[in-house]
Amino acid sequence: MSHAAAPSLPAALAPDALLERLRWRYAVKKFDPGRKIPAATWDALEDVLRLSPSSYGLQPWRFVVVQDTALRETLRAVSWGQPQITDASHLVVFAARRDLGAADVERLIDATAQERSLTRESLAGFARALTSFAQSGRDLHAWSARQTYIALGFFLEACALLGVDACPMEGIEPAKYDEILGLTDKGYGALCVATAGYRSAEDAYAHAKKVRFPAGHVIERR
Amino acid sequence: MSHAAAPSLPAALAPDALLERLRWRYAVKKFDPGRKIPAATWDALEDVLRLSPSSYGLQPWRFVVVQDTALRETLRAVSWGQPQITDASHLVVFAARRDLGAADVERLIDATAQERSLTRESLAGFARALTSFAQSGRDLHAWSARQTYIALGFFLEACALLGVDACPMEGIEPAKYDEILGLTDKGYGALCVATAGYRSAEDAYAHAKKVRFPAGHVIERR
Repeated sequence: MSHAAAPSLPAALAPDALLERLRWRYAVKKFDPGRKIPAATWDALEDVLRLSPSSYGLQPWRFVVVQDTALRETLRAVSWGQPQITDASHLVVFAARRDLGAADVERLIDATAQERSLTRESLAGFARALTSFAQSGRDLHAWSARQTYIALGFFLEACALLGVDACPMEGIEPAKYDEILGLTDKGYGALCVATAGYRSAEDAYAHAKKVRFPAGHVIERR
Repeated sequence: MSHAAAPSLPAALAPDALLERLRWRYAVKKFDPGRKIPAATWDALEDVLRLSPSSYGLQPWRFVVVQDTALRETLRAVSWGQPQITDASHLVVFAARRDLGAADVERLIDATAQERSLTRESLAGFARALTSFAQSGRDLHAWSARQTYIALGFFLEACALLGVDACPMEGIEPAKYDEILGLTDKGYGALCVATAGYRSAEDAYAHAKKVRFPAGHVIERR
């Protein structure tokens, strides 16, 4: 069999079940501030972030989970005052690596050697490819930002599947986030946030029809 | 109840089931060329692409599904010859809008008015916000590219949930893709592709341990 599953692998979802859960999601404008995501569910969402794929497996990202109330207030002030920042159960800041250098290459080679019980020597070709990519002169922060948005997609879809509401938000002041969270010194730059929790019964947007262009406008078959 | 579900909404997934399916996925190096994704499953994956969230709901993307064998060969030649381009059941090219202008704003306002049975006048504030964003002077292709990577994340997670194998690939020559698929004239630029199908029994990478940095390296709790 070409598709052998591990004995414990849960069954694949029915396509309709997946689509129904994705249609259930929307960008929450008003969260129920009294309702918290259970710890086991949140832990899984953090694991989803970690499991997100990235090119070369470089994981050029950092996810800052902000639970401190005062810090959430501070961040709200540099997020156009949007209430989701403080009212949602959880807040994650998505930040991308500003640059990639020898240390990043080393870190991935080390992790690969360890996880797969390989020698560093056997990974020399991979290390050369990574080094060449890091030295290619392309805009590595822009590249890392794209990768980080894969993780954002992974996170939002996972929320919908686990019955957690969310709102991705680009309306933040990234430079202020970097300063407040000390991201610049660590070599990362904030891109956007995702708030997660449970929709308020008063959020009228929960009932608004989802707006998507017709398939023919976005999907082309060749 | 703050979290009322539509009567038909399928139950949320158990966190462990979601994680197991995400651990099952990997970037396939060798597909089984004889195995095709069933039409109903593929249709759902196209719907997943359409349902992907984007900032402002602008959907600044185009997904080109290439089924023509000769065209797949042509694209493989500008993708460093990687065999997945021709061997996978399906190939999707992810392209992002190069610029955003008045026509894009109009298109979204029209779609919103129609879907939600609203007058265009009632959407004037939204239209102004969109216009202001389009004229903000930021790099809109870079912005659209990030949004498109949300869709890539959505697609890859959906594949894993539906039991479809996939491989995201940035190793393509985007300018050649633009030329071959006529994307530039339509105002889009190719970013990357995703191949989807079923892993070959001979793909040794199916058994390689997934390499992820420890939680403490990528997740910071504040």
